[in-house]
Amino acid sequence: MKRKLLSACIALVMGVGGGYASMVLAQQKPEVLVKQRQAAMTLQGKYWGPVNAMAQGKAPYDAAVAARNAGFLEALSKMPWDGFHESTKDTTEKTRALPAVYENPAKFKEAADRLQTATTKLVASAKDETAFKAAAGEVGKACGGCHNDFRAK
Amino acid sequence: MKRKLLSACIALVMGVGGGYASMVLAQQKPEVLVKQRQAAMTLQGKYWGPVNAMAQGKAPYDAAVAARNAGFLEALSKMPWDGFHESTKDTTEKTRALPAVYENPAKFKEAADRLQTATTKLVASAKDETAFKAAAGEVGKACGGCHNDFRAK
Repeated sequence: MKRKLLSACIALVMGVGGGYASMVLAQQKPEVLVKQRQAAMTLQGKYWGPVNAMAQGKAPYDAAVAARNAGFLEALSKMPWDGFHESTKDTTEKTRALPAVYENPAKFKEAADRLQTATTKLVASAKDETAFKAAAGEVGKACGGCHNDFRAK
Repeated sequence: MKRKLLSACIALVMGVGGGYASMVLAQQKPEVLVKQRQAAMTLQGKYWGPVNAMAQGKAPYDAAVAARNAGFLEALSKMPWDGFHESTKDTTEKTRALPAVYENPAKFKEAADRLQTATTKLVASAKDETAFKAAAGEVGKACGGCHNDFRAK
């Protein structure tokens, strides 16, 4: 049984964002994991706001802010996923995560990877206004796509 | 009056972590700012845990985890500060931030800067176990020092 749990844990770790730290996290209480993944979402919202405003022409493009926020978003885009551990499936914490997260882990991982790829491109494009706005559009689609499929309205 | 507010805002932005994004944030509702700064603290805790465990010999040193978590901590160490905006001083949100944050902004900024410097050194030292453990000690002191002075027990 312990071995089974360990295998599942290793599979999770290899699959989503990896490393020993995730092993440590996998032993965290479900309510802590939920709180941590929600914290990552909150901060993604914080730094996405100005990026989206620039992309939509609601705020003037600012290369320094573009680079800073893109860098933060790239880091943050790696943080939520180990928080969606199987142990949080039946949490009593308030969460909008849908059962689909646990029922379709391959599709969920694909959505998570898409965001990480998009934020890496956002970092690479931050110095050029046109490229940055296009890259921001892809980040927005990655957010929206995942929320559509895996988050309650 | 508007000009006065703008000046105060610019001073805050220049003082703590800077950039246009912070201006945008300064217009956020106090409860959002509190939520965002607490999210940054939550994630610092998430990635500090394994670093501290390695530093204290409670977990084996792992260079990959050391580098990854140090990088995350460096990014996260820049995120909380604009959330301690003057507008959050009298928030009804649950917060352990002490009045000292607003009464002694220079000392608070010093404490914030200390953490950012310490996490940058943590990143630089991550490949070397001995240096990493020493650098982690400094990060721990930066956390503790700030919490002692600016956070309720």
